[in-house]
This record gives sequence, C-alpha cells and structure tokens, in this order.
Amino acid sequence: MSSLQAMSKQELTQRVTALREEYEGYKARGLSLDMSRGKPSAEQLDLTNGLLDCVNARTGFCTDAGFDTRNYGLLDGTPEAKALFAELLDVPTDNVVVAGNSSLNLMFDYIAQAVSTGLCGNTPWGQLSEVKFLCPVPGYDRHFAITEHFGISMITVPMTENGPDMDMVEELVKDPAVKGMWCVPMYSNPQGITYSDETVRRLANMVPAAPDFRIMWDNAYCIHHLTDTPDTLLNIFDEVHAVGHDDMVVIFASTSKVSFPGAGVAVLAASKANIADIKRRLTVQTIGHDKINMLRHTRFFGNAEGVHQHMKLHAAVLRPKFDVVLSALENRLGDTGAARWHTPNGGYFVSVELQNGCAKETVRLLKEAGVVITPAGATYPYGQDPNDSVLRIAPSYPPLSELEIAMELFCICAELVYAEKLLNA
Amino acid sequence: MSSLQAMSKQELTQRVTALREEYEGYKARGLSLDMSRGKPSAEQLDLTNGLLDCVNARTGFCTDAGFDTRNYGLLDGTPEAKALFAELLDVPTDNVVVAGNSSLNLMFDYIAQAVSTGLCGNTPWGQLSEVKFLCPVPGYDRHFAITEHFGISMITVPMTENGPDMDMVEELVKDPAVKGMWCVPMYSNPQGITYSDETVRRLANMVPAAPDFRIMWDNAYCIHHLTDTPDTLLNIFDEVHAVGHDDMVVIFASTSKVSFPGAGVAVLAASKANIADIKRRLTVQTIGHDKINMLRHTRFFGNAEGVHQHMKLHAAVLRPKFDVVLSALENRLGDTGAARWHTPNGGYFVSVELQNGCAKETVRLLKEAGVVITPAGATYPYGQDPNDSVLRIAPSYPPLSELEIAMELFCICAELVYAEKLLNA
Repeated sequence: MSSLQAMSKQELTQRVTALREEYEGYKARGLSLDMSRGKPSAEQLDLTNGLLDCVNARTGFCTDAGFDTRNYGLLDGTPEAKALFAELLDVPTDNVVVAGNSSLNLMFDYIAQAVSTGLCGNTPWGQLSEVKFLCPVPGYDRHFAITEHFGISMITVPMTENGPDMDMVEELVKDPAVKGMWCVPMYSNPQGITYSDETVRRLANMVPAAPDFRIMWDNAYCIHHLTDTPDTLLNIFDEVHAVGHDDMVVIFASTSKVSFPGAGVAVLAASKANIADIKRRLTVQTIGHDKINMLRHTRFFGNAEGVHQHMKLHAAVLRPKFDVVLSALENRLGDTGAARWHTPNGGYFVSVELQNGCAKETVRLLKEAGVVITPAGATYPYGQDPNDSVLRIAPSYPPLSELEIAMELFCICAELVYAEKLLNA
Repeated sequence: MSSLQAMSKQELTQRVTALREEYEGYKARGLSLDMSRGKPSAEQLDLTNGLLDCVNARTGFCTDAGFDTRNYGLLDGTPEAKALFAELLDVPTDNVVVAGNSSLNLMFDYIAQAVSTGLCGNTPWGQLSEVKFLCPVPGYDRHFAITEHFGISMITVPMTENGPDMDMVEELVKDPAVKGMWCVPMYSNPQGITYSDETVRRLANMVPAAPDFRIMWDNAYCIHHLTDTPDTLLNIFDEVHAVGHDDMVVIFASTSKVSFPGAGVAVLAASKANIADIKRRLTVQTIGHDKINMLRHTRFFGNAEGVHQHMKLHAAVLRPKFDVVLSALENRLGDTGAARWHTPNGGYFVSVELQNGCAKETVRLLKEAGVVITPAGATYPYGQDPNDSVLRIAPSYPPLSELEIAMELFCICAELVYAEKLLNA
C-alpha cells in the first residue's frame, strides 16, 4: 500500500491488475451485503425490549400527577417526558415540546408552517418570490429533501473540521432571502464532525437580514457517543440567549436510535416565542401525541443518567463495527491517497472523501459485486455532489462478519477506481 | 310540562318562578360537573388494556412477513394494519395508508399540503387569492379550526336529517374558489345524523368547478354504533369510483375511540392518484409511523369482526349514558317547545337546538351552577352560531350519577331561558 499518485505507469498497471483480480474474486462469491442505511441492528433493538412492558394494567397508566395517559390531553407531552428531555438537552422544561415518533416530522412541520402560515407573524415563505436555505455539505439527505419539497433554494456551505465554513455563512445571511440553515452540530451526518465552540458562538452571534431566519439544530446524535473520550458541544440555547438571539434557533432530537426507530419519542426545544408559535399550530394540527409511549420511555430510562447508561450499551455494540470500517480504511487506503475521512467519536456514519470523480464509479463496482452503500451524491442537495467524491458508510446494521467483507471490497473498489483514473489521465 | 309558547303571561311567570327555585336548589349544591368533551370514560379505556401486552419480547416484534416493527421502514403501515383498516373501511388495501395516532393530524397535513405545495399538480392554495370550504353546520369545531388556521373562507351549509343541504352544496361547488368540504357522514358530530344514500350519491356525482376540490370524509364514527339497529352509510369510495370521480374524496378514520385517544392508530383511504400524492409528501415528512403500535392493534383485534365485537363493549358502557341524556330531554323538555334534537344511533354527542338566542344564556346559567358543557357557537365556523341556538352535549366521560344531575340542570336552564325570553318578548 503506497501513494498511487507517486507510482510509475508500470506500477499503476500492476496495481490495477492486482486489484482487479481481488475484485473479481469477491464478485465471484455472489455477495449480498448492505451498508446503506443508518439502521440500528437487532442486537441494539433488543437493548430496549423492556420498555414495551413498562405501561400496562399492572404498572398503571398515570403520570405522577395522576393524569391518565390513555386519554386525550397534554398537547406538549407528559410532564415526566418534558423533564427528561429538558435534562438531556440542558434547557428549561417550559421550552420543550415532546411530540410524536419522528424528529424529521417535527422539522418538516416547522418548515411547512413557515411556508404556509409564517413564523411568529412574519410573511409566509410561500408568498415570497425566493427563499434560500444554507446547507452544510456533505449533510443529511432528508434535510435537503424537506427544503427541496417546499421549493426552497439550497446554498451549499462546505464543512470543515470545526463545522460549516463560518466566513461563508456570515456573508450569506446578509441576504434577506436566506431564511435558515440546516445543522447536525454533533457527530454530523455523515462526517461525524462536532461543531467547535467558536463555530457555535459565531452561529449564535449572527444577525441575519431575515427576521425569521432559523437555525434548524438537528441534535440527532447529542448522546450517541462511541468512545470514552466523547466530543463536547456548546449549548446553543444558552449561547443565543446570552446575545438576545433566542428566537433564531430551534433544537430537534429523538430517541429513534436510543429506543426504537419509529416507536421512539421526538422532541423540540425553542424560545418562548417559538414554542408559542408552534403550539398555536399544534393545537389545530393534532389531538396530541402518544402519551402512553412517553410514559414507557420515562419509566424505562428514569432520568438522563439512565439514558446515558443505556447509550453505553449501544456504543458497546456499535464500536466494533466502526473499528472494522476505520481499520479497513486505514490499512487498505491509508497511504494510497485514494481517500480521506474523519474518525468520528460518535454518531452513525463514516464519510469517505475519495478523489474527484471517483464516487459514482466506486458505488457501481460495489453494486456489481453485491454490496449496497448510500448512493453517491446523496449527502448533497438535489443528490448532486459537484466533485463526485463523497461516499457515506453506515456500519450499524450489518453483522460484523459481513461488514468486514463489505469494507474490504469497498477499499478495493475505491483504490481501483482511483488507480484506473490515474492510469487513464 | 307543556308548550311554553301556548302559556299565558301568568302561567309563564309561575313557570319561571318554579324553574328559578329548582335552579337555585341545584346551584346551592356547589356542583362541579363536566359534559364538555367527547372523551371516553376510564371504564371504556379499560376495555383495551390488553392491547398494551400484545407486543413484547415474549410475543415477538415481527409482521407475518417477518418485518421487525422495531426498526425503520414500511412508510404506509404494516401489511396487517393496512388489511385490517381496508376491511373496516371496505376499500382495497392499496388505497390505504396507516399512519400516526391522530386522524385530525392527517386532515391537517392534507390541507397543509394543498396550501403549500398543491394537490396532484394543481396550484398551491396558498398562491390563490381566495380559497373557500363548505362547512355543514352544526359541525366539528376542530375541522373548522384547520380551515381557519390556513385562512380558508368557510361557507356554512345547514344540515338536514339526511345530511348537508345538497341543493345548496351543488350550487356552491360551481364556484372554482370552493376547494373542498368537511363531512362527518356517519353519526355526525354533533348531531349524530347519518348521510342518506341519496346524499352520498349526490355528493359523489358532483362536478365541482375546482379540479382539486376534495371532500374531507371524516368517517370518525363509522363503527361507533350505540344500538342494535345501527344506521347504514353508503360507501362513498365505491360511489365516486362508479362515476369516475375517484380523486374527489379522501377518507379518514382512527381508533381514538376504539382503543386509546392519543395512543391509537389513524388511517386514510383515497384514490391511487391521491395516495401517490400523499406518499410523495410522507416520504419527505417522516421516517414512518409507529409500527409497534400498529402490531399491538392488529394482534389485539385480529380482524374487522374483532373490532366490531369490541365496539359492542363500548356501546354497552355508552348506551346508558345516552339514555340518561335523551330521557332527560324527552321528559323535561319534550313538549315545552324549548328544544329539538336528533336521537342518534351512534357517535359521541347529542346536539340540542334551542330556540334562537337561548344557547349562550343557557351555558352561562349552567356554568354558574357548576356544570360545564361545550361553549355555545363551538359547532360553527369561527365559533359563531348566527342563531345562538345550538348546544352540544358529550355524555361519554362523566359517571352516570353525575350525568343525571347535569342533565336535569341542563333542562332546567334551557327551559328557564326560553320561558324568560317569552315573558320579556
């Protein structure tokens, strides 16, 4: 394994031949492996099975205050669930709404509200000639799908090791058509980067031209540490408050990867004015969310410390899988120059930056050999990676044995594509 | 008890005095009773407790096809839940989406979609200068709250014993600004009226000027019979199909009053084109709904017949409560001329039509004596009953003993207000 760039044409030809041979060997095995989705494995799901027995006729259905969770009421969640998430997110309980099963749904509905009826008395975005959103890239495809759905123009901002390029962000928010920004501030999807303190402070201190500019702070992985030396993230709720910009940020999270995806609990936290604005809609939108499921969660976890302990069990399952991915990348691609990546301390993904023009072809080769990964371009707005270089690896779902094979093949394909590219250059 | 209208001034004066005395007697008791909300009682909720034990580590988490309901996937619901609701609503499985916990939420989101991104390729309603909706009255306040939230003008259409006044409806839909209509076709909220076959057929045969006109068919009480001689409702899904108007109707229902309000399952049924349109949004809006809860429901109920049997248990609890309400009305107000009502065969409410100008004052007197009912006007758009005559009684939640007292007082107040009105005329 050595730098492909530094090889002679003859060395490159030999390397391509060797990699082709390895590739064909794997291909002949008729594999069917999937590294495409950030899904918990069955082993992880089993960690939370006990939650399903936490509310029934034997345990009772009432909150501490005696409210029957089987009936209508408590639009913003059970007091216990609000307290638990307030503790986890380190915000006041009154600034929390505990809702349904999907934080993505909360984000969609918030943007839908901005588009259809407007935020805090501002003009509905649907009545403006142009609305733009800042999208740090690579990023989360489902965020971009929401803004695309509503016809909002997306402006990409490159991620750095400290978060989005803040010089660029600060310049862009001077445009009053720029109405918001997607952020996964901790263990970002897909790179696993945590925003630096300076980045959070600069975000909090921005004075965008649009009065209804919103930072969509998707803190999906705030407690999803993988190592004993976790990243730390500055509390943006406190930072915006300190400078009087309380209304600029809405925080989202869920237990999709804490308890069960689809049967978890989602939450948002925001300023008093934003919460009132959101509740004005919620009052009309729903009869309330599933309080029995909230009660299951608060009984199972007890408090924030209980959740943190539970996340250590998840980490124990996930860490060996991330180790397989990172070892393969290091051992097989480390010095080749074919790939760069950030080693994450948490989250659900490893993002690999290949040389320009290598991503799609790598995915194609993998697919032909029976390994599915997230499509090239998926981490960019409109599915278009201008450099065709970024691929996202999701290690959580496949068993270790399958992951090892899939990663070997990934590295073979990535190196092969780059080597052939150099050879044909 | 006799016709107040026919009484002499002296007789009226005596009657008012007698009623005042009765009223003051109740008032002195310091009551605190609530007939305001269509909430199931604890006795009803207990009927479904077994559902909460239907999915756990002992019973397993998978659908019949082996899909693990604890993980991501199945955007439109589990196959079993789709099949159950298809059977209950008598529509094909492919035309069903099983979703979250609130059919109101499904209705809100559908109108939100119409406003923000448009229905089936039509112009978003938010970009039109005026959008109008037909609202049969009296009707469901939460429907009207949705259309009001989105700034949609509401046109009232009076209900008859056969459903909305169809002559009026057919005339109004010639206006291209009229984009839809709210309907609770069976055991309507609040009157308990079921649309006649002719009404359903005339609705299905309409050719509204607006291509994206939608009948919001909230079949909330489709299986909520109270008697052994239930009403029957023509299947609008078949009726619109027969005349090629498939896209004109979207059907909504939920198990809020079958299993648990807030922890039930909601469903919609619609044409192929509408389902595709809704799924285009859902794909972006959510990671999917709570499939574990769907599995609980299908395991607990088994099939449509199981649901119908379960509803008989609900009816056994509810029927005596409705009997108290209807007996009190009949015995105390029957011949007074102070009130008219429809005797419902199902649903959750009794709607009482008082003489014009008597509703608010009756509510005020009740409140002063410690009895809360749904506010006067609540069953009309913007909370404004032009005749101030309609009051909604919700018998389900209070215990029988409390309901008896509250209804006695209701009748006293209603008669008193009318008698005083006649006296002062």
